[in-house]
Amino acid sequence: MLARQVCIIGAGMTAFSGKLHRDKTCRELLVEAALEAEKSVDKGIDLKKDVDAVFTGYFTPEIYEHQGHIGPLTATWLGLTPKPAFRTEIACASSSAALYAGITAVASGLCDVVLVAGVEKMTNLETQEVTEALALASDDISESRVGATFPGLYALLAQAYFKKYGATWEQLQTVTIKNHYNGSLNPKAHFQETIAQIAEKVGSKYGVKYRDELDFLKNSPFNRVIAYPLRLFDCCPISDGAAVAILASASIAKKFTDTPLKFLGVGLASDNLALQDRVEHASLRASRHAAETAYKMAGVKPKDINIVEVHDCFTIAEWLAVEDLGLVERGGAAKAYEEGLTSLEGEIPVNTDGGLKAKGHPVGATGVGMLHEVWHQLRGTAGRRQIKNKAELGLVHNVGGSGASAAVFIVGR
Amino acid sequence: MLARQVCIIGAGMTAFSGKLHRDKTCRELLVEAALEAEKSVDKGIDLKKDVDAVFTGYFTPEIYEHQGHIGPLTATWLGLTPKPAFRTEIACASSSAALYAGITAVASGLCDVVLVAGVEKMTNLETQEVTEALALASDDISESRVGATFPGLYALLAQAYFKKYGATWEQLQTVTIKNHYNGSLNPKAHFQETIAQIAEKVGSKYGVKYRDELDFLKNSPFNRVIAYPLRLFDCCPISDGAAVAILASASIAKKFTDTPLKFLGVGLASDNLALQDRVEHASLRASRHAAETAYKMAGVKPKDINIVEVHDCFTIAEWLAVEDLGLVERGGAAKAYEEGLTSLEGEIPVNTDGGLKAKGHPVGATGVGMLHEVWHQLRGTAGRRQIKNKAELGLVHNVGGSGASAAVFIVGR
Repeated sequence: MLARQVCIIGAGMTAFSGKLHRDKTCRELLVEAALEAEKSVDKGIDLKKDVDAVFTGYFTPEIYEHQGHIGPLTATWLGLTPKPAFRTEIACASSSAALYAGITAVASGLCDVVLVAGVEKMTNLETQEVTEALALASDDISESRVGATFPGLYALLAQAYFKKYGATWEQLQTVTIKNHYNGSLNPKAHFQETIAQIAEKVGSKYGVKYRDELDFLKNSPFNRVIAYPLRLFDCCPISDGAAVAILASASIAKKFTDTPLKFLGVGLASDNLALQDRVEHASLRASRHAAETAYKMAGVKPKDINIVEVHDCFTIAEWLAVEDLGLVERGGAAKAYEEGLTSLEGEIPVNTDGGLKAKGHPVGATGVGMLHEVWHQLRGTAGRRQIKNKAELGLVHNVGGSGASAAVFIVGR
Repeated sequence: MLARQVCIIGAGMTAFSGKLHRDKTCRELLVEAALEAEKSVDKGIDLKKDVDAVFTGYFTPEIYEHQGHIGPLTATWLGLTPKPAFRTEIACASSSAALYAGITAVASGLCDVVLVAGVEKMTNLETQEVTEALALASDDISESRVGATFPGLYALLAQAYFKKYGATWEQLQTVTIKNHYNGSLNPKAHFQETIAQIAEKVGSKYGVKYRDELDFLKNSPFNRVIAYPLRLFDCCPISDGAAVAILASASIAKKFTDTPLKFLGVGLASDNLALQDRVEHASLRASRHAAETAYKMAGVKPKDINIVEVHDCFTIAEWLAVEDLGLVERGGAAKAYEEGLTSLEGEIPVNTDGGLKAKGHPVGATGVGMLHEVWHQLRGTAGRRQIKNKAELGLVHNVGGSGASAAVFIVGR
């Protein structure tokens, strides 16, 4: 249990994009996200005066920007020096580690208000170099050094899942189609086109007319195999972006807003890096443990959650996530997705912002970026993608690497 | 103020060395340090059962070991999965950030017992490559990209200090001589020879007899200029090593030891990365702020401290540190050092383990390695280098880069 309750009083993010931010550094991205977070605080906030510390998630700045020591760099660019600042890293869940650091800093009594940032500036490098940088999240000795990359690792997880539950790649495309649809409603998403729109565009270029979205995904050479059974549209893109959340202790939060959101459940978990060192591959143990911890702390059950952001770096990851979170029974994702359970109008909308698949995945920004979406959905400010059901409880699920790290945060009023 | 008091119940470290660990990875180093920390717990501890989370400081594993995602890697190798695990980074103070994360995790109530680790496996690379890796802690845009490296940056600080206070390089050698003497008493130090012993060895090789230690440092071509005015013996070596501390809430700590040490003061601070963006260069603002925070929280003054570990990556850094910590008045370091104030028998022994200069500086391991020394000095188990005065209060001071980060921890009973 937390010694002091911790609230979210503001959130902001840049657009996630493969093009928009080419000429920027992480510095400008962090400033842009922080300014939006500052503006989002209902009663206003003076970052320089009110913020006690800043924690930044960034997976591999050394590789992308020839820059380490991101903590004080963030503090400098946000005008926060000489306040405490450090970087956290657990691969693709790096900003969830920053959230954990921020939550514990506030709950510990050392800080009253903290800024939690996430950023990744990936487009400085070519695709193959990015793939190599991302591979640093896998086990050097048994995976990356011998040529394994993330599409390959998640392809193995997909194969294991398909084999265990008899699900098919065709069924998995429900994830692609849903997330591109949601992304089409999100002005900050990397991809803002539905699969139907993309099929139309690609088809017209080559004089082909596709029967439907699945026909396109299955039969267009454009949707080439990346690592069997995963194809291009099963993979999230390479994006630049930053996201910032402002946290405060419950007593202080009132000064900044009448409607803070509370962290009700906090779960963080680890597992062996290498797939070969894990017992199971149709599920991620770290996700299950993080979820269990967060549900227990919040005193809620999966069915109580109204809006969920999960880590869909590859389509298969979303299925593993919804099952590991207990939103769908093990092996039941194909059916649930075909029935629309997780669509925007469904009972448990998942990845309303387009997910990593369509919103984009600037690695270090993703965890806080997910929180940003839940923040808007729970406040009813998610625009065209606002869910219709009354949203009381939101859940963020962020995975590091192929599942050696996982974080789950449950937020509500 | 911390919502719950946090104690240190165990500490361990590998030898810091440039040779011993050549064939190992960070994995083996972390295990070695953790096993020693485990053994140091007075009433015993079962890491797998008792530890709730692990935080690891490691500056640039991507460069040294082609490996990111160090959090779960640590958890795996210490048998701690699926517990929470992440890496923290603020350059050379990376494991002080891990201490901050560990302290707040315990004080927050989320954890009762945590393991805090620091490690750096540097000797995989050649010296020039290491220098390049370290330069990632400086500002890419205005420093490292245009060729600045850390000896150069600290040389600028030395010049600024000499100019401001009229101190000389010859006087600064009191740091070199003291720390090598202390290192000669530390079986885990990288260098275990006094400057006199080194002078004798080098002299006999070339048929030269040096009058005294300063004569050697000044006149031997062996002590070549690295970045004027800093010479070889003004610089810490490139070392491999790991250090681990075990923290627990005060109420739980009793289960493990009758004599826990408490964190009485915790200070962490940031500053601009680039020297050109700072107002002053004969002092580090981040050190001053971190110290001020820690003293205030502990309710003690500099003169109350009995044993101090400071960040002497270069000799000049030790002088800046003792002044920024208020142990010596500004500009007074030369006189204080000539009078022996900080020697093993002095009033305020500084760097009894040899400091970064002689003990070594495996970057990510340094913060926890300093705590390890204070732990032993306060418990009276520091062997031949045990200070004679009764040690009630110890202080750890760890700097990131050229001073963009600084951490100060005050520990006592």
